[in-house]
Amino acid sequence: MTEFIQQCRNAIGASYVLTDKEDTFAYEQEWRQRLRGNALAVLRPASTQEVARLITICKSFGVSIVPQGGNTGLVLGSIPDTSGKSVVLSLKRLNNIRAIDTANNTLTAEAGCLLSAIQQAAAKVDRLYPLSLASEGSCTVGGNLSTNAGGTAVLRYGNARDLCLGLEVVTANGDVWDGLRGLRKDNTGYDLRDLFIGAEGTLGIITAATLKLYPAPVANMTVMVALESPEAALLLLNEASKKLGPTLTGFELISRICLQLVIKHIPSQSDPFMQQYPYYVLLETSEHQSAELAKVFIRDFLEAQLNQGHILDAVLAENLTQANALWNLRENISMAQAKEGKNIKHDISVPISSIPAFIATTNQLLAHHFAGSRVVCFGHMGDGNLHYNVSPAIGQSADVFLQSQEAVNRLVHDQVHHFHGSISAEHGLGALKREEIQRYKSLIEMNLMRSIKQALDPHNLMNPGKII
Amino acid sequence: MTEFIQQCRNAIGASYVLTDKEDTFAYEQEWRQRLRGNALAVLRPASTQEVARLITICKSFGVSIVPQGGNTGLVLGSIPDTSGKSVVLSLKRLNNIRAIDTANNTLTAEAGCLLSAIQQAAAKVDRLYPLSLASEGSCTVGGNLSTNAGGTAVLRYGNARDLCLGLEVVTANGDVWDGLRGLRKDNTGYDLRDLFIGAEGTLGIITAATLKLYPAPVANMTVMVALESPEAALLLLNEASKKLGPTLTGFELISRICLQLVIKHIPSQSDPFMQQYPYYVLLETSEHQSAELAKVFIRDFLEAQLNQGHILDAVLAENLTQANALWNLRENISMAQAKEGKNIKHDISVPISSIPAFIATTNQLLAHHFAGSRVVCFGHMGDGNLHYNVSPAIGQSADVFLQSQEAVNRLVHDQVHHFHGSISAEHGLGALKREEIQRYKSLIEMNLMRSIKQALDPHNLMNPGKII
Repeated sequence: MTEFIQQCRNAIGASYVLTDKEDTFAYEQEWRQRLRGNALAVLRPASTQEVARLITICKSFGVSIVPQGGNTGLVLGSIPDTSGKSVVLSLKRLNNIRAIDTANNTLTAEAGCLLSAIQQAAAKVDRLYPLSLASEGSCTVGGNLSTNAGGTAVLRYGNARDLCLGLEVVTANGDVWDGLRGLRKDNTGYDLRDLFIGAEGTLGIITAATLKLYPAPVANMTVMVALESPEAALLLLNEASKKLGPTLTGFELISRICLQLVIKHIPSQSDPFMQQYPYYVLLETSEHQSAELAKVFIRDFLEAQLNQGHILDAVLAENLTQANALWNLRENISMAQAKEGKNIKHDISVPISSIPAFIATTNQLLAHHFAGSRVVCFGHMGDGNLHYNVSPAIGQSADVFLQSQEAVNRLVHDQVHHFHGSISAEHGLGALKREEIQRYKSLIEMNLMRSIKQALDPHNLMNPGKII
Repeated sequence: MTEFIQQCRNAIGASYVLTDKEDTFAYEQEWRQRLRGNALAVLRPASTQEVARLITICKSFGVSIVPQGGNTGLVLGSIPDTSGKSVVLSLKRLNNIRAIDTANNTLTAEAGCLLSAIQQAAAKVDRLYPLSLASEGSCTVGGNLSTNAGGTAVLRYGNARDLCLGLEVVTANGDVWDGLRGLRKDNTGYDLRDLFIGAEGTLGIITAATLKLYPAPVANMTVMVALESPEAALLLLNEASKKLGPTLTGFELISRICLQLVIKHIPSQSDPFMQQYPYYVLLETSEHQSAELAKVFIRDFLEAQLNQGHILDAVLAENLTQANALWNLRENISMAQAKEGKNIKHDISVPISSIPAFIATTNQLLAHHFAGSRVVCFGHMGDGNLHYNVSPAIGQSADVFLQSQEAVNRLVHDQVHHFHGSISAEHGLGALKREEIQRYKSLIEMNLMRSIKQALDPHNLMNPGKII
């Protein structure tokens, strides 16, 4: 492999081909730091042309490629296996914003740009790039698209896929496909764009994208609502969709235990209500008319919901500080649960109408089979997407509980399947769920996917061992 | 082929296998009635299982299949060639609405359902299925998805692709892929759904789909605005997007000659303004709060635009009758132009920001090379999509002018390409633009498309001669 490394050095400069273990360490380790792989080398190209050159070299040596952005993925999609035979191809030096067209509401960025950099660049020209995730300060455009990232604004703006108009991709053959179109309508053949999006780097490498921007709203209203049950949350979602229409931009379900854990483990977090309630919804609206009207609309809505008994209480943020305080409660749940101890996570979706039944049935089954286990359930109810995590019983050793991880996954995912849901709503399959998905997808679907993989990456060099 | 026909008859019943020319005639003729193909037979299955059986029979006899819905396509995508070797597979008997889930805002329908039937079924449960096209009374769900249909509400709700959550497809192998998911988030592998959508039946046959519904707005406001130029229209679009946000649901550009032709050729149509203006925009908003507020918002907006000199005049529809009258002006343009005589049509898109420059440059080039030719330009400016049609000079014979069709197409499409646009924004490629697209797409892109076709339809039996 000396010759291979030498050719890579010639292609992009010796200092951007990392082979010392102290240099490659961070690229081989996954986000949660539980597992790590082993890379032949880490390649850090600075341009699309350099990526294309590297792929051509890899192809000629039969070296497989693991593309990596911010390495914030949760399904082992962006680290190599332990064989030491793959290179990690980091896209982080491709970090230019190539163009902003405010009259077309588009922004063209390279794959290594941070999500937060895109958000800020959009804000500077009075536009909104609506993708919003907990890891937005570390994750990249290429990773967002390769995993079709979701987040908290999907209800109104869709997933990363829905926010992308065009792509530039280096194919497994080392060709550059220039599909960087800024068009809302283009019906000239197969939808290559959406095939590369969500493919987790297994079909080609996204090097740049043309993203949709939206006019920035003049005001956001944030409210925490207390309710009796998931059924009440579903009713509220229906009412909010109807009355608030597209100004409804966030609808996050939070169960009582989530709030308890945040208050217990995260400094200076407190319960916004005087008494305890079984469930909460964090609801956000975005208004274009005026801040005054935004407040009137949300107040009228809440009053009507209280009067009709659909909700038990509500706290409306009166300013940005209060709004951030409410969002902090939501965004600290994962960290609070981690501080409580190890747990078993699920990123699932079901039809929105099935959420109450899914929660009731699965809670009951878990209580029966894993007595005392605690369901920490929260997430993007407006998209049917729940982070349905399970912590051990109070007093039970986490390590003992984690021995049941497979059985717990099976129980939860079988319920997801029963309700026609997805076992990976927004995180992807990576290496983590690659085997498990075969239990839930039909052989026909798996074979269609295999045909496509075979057609676009016949030598299986693009992120092998991920997805299929 | 007697044995083939017999097996088809056994599979779906003799009366649903049409071979007499008087029975097959309508299926072989394209919408504009300028061209017709020749089918071996017309097959009319009633269920997904019957479709699968027919595909299996076709495969074993090597007979190719042209799927057909309402046969309203404009690019020769749904009729067979003249060889008499393909069957037309009509999906129109698959016309059940299988399920409506209001709490999930989804509707699952078979491919042969009329678009208008879906709209009505949604309206009955106080929901909106926003896809809206001139041919909505004749076109079908399967055709809408196979051509990724656009229409007048794309600005807010997206194309047919964006309105579909899941598909059922019969593959070229005769297998049934059940991808009928009602999920907003599902990241478990390659995006097969979006690959079959827009593939014009060349990769498989869509037999059913789960579609997105939206809560119905309480009021729509329709206004016709008069302006100086496409530049003014672009400015207005920007202002409207900012101020009206997602309540802006329609933005159609209309040049003066369009209105003139409608008034001239369509009975009881009249100019809504007292004087003539160079351009118009038909603008629509959809409001969820109340009809009163919808009126206040649009009036405030128009007043501000008039005061700032962005627009020259405006007519606001005060009731549904007036709104329909304004929409009729827009929707009669194609028919009025047809009554004026034969013309050369283009369904193009460019980045929205390039519309003024595209129109100015292309108008000028046409005036230079085809003296007196009249550009009839209108369409979905909010999506960058124009129907940029060219009529002969006054007094020139249409047949003489149509001898220049290729040269006119070349001139217009080269300009589209120059502005990084698409030569088929919402109609697809079919057989009509199959050759021409190769001039504008890179070899890399064409080869990616060919790989996918080869992978999913190795014997080239699915709608051969269309797209690639």
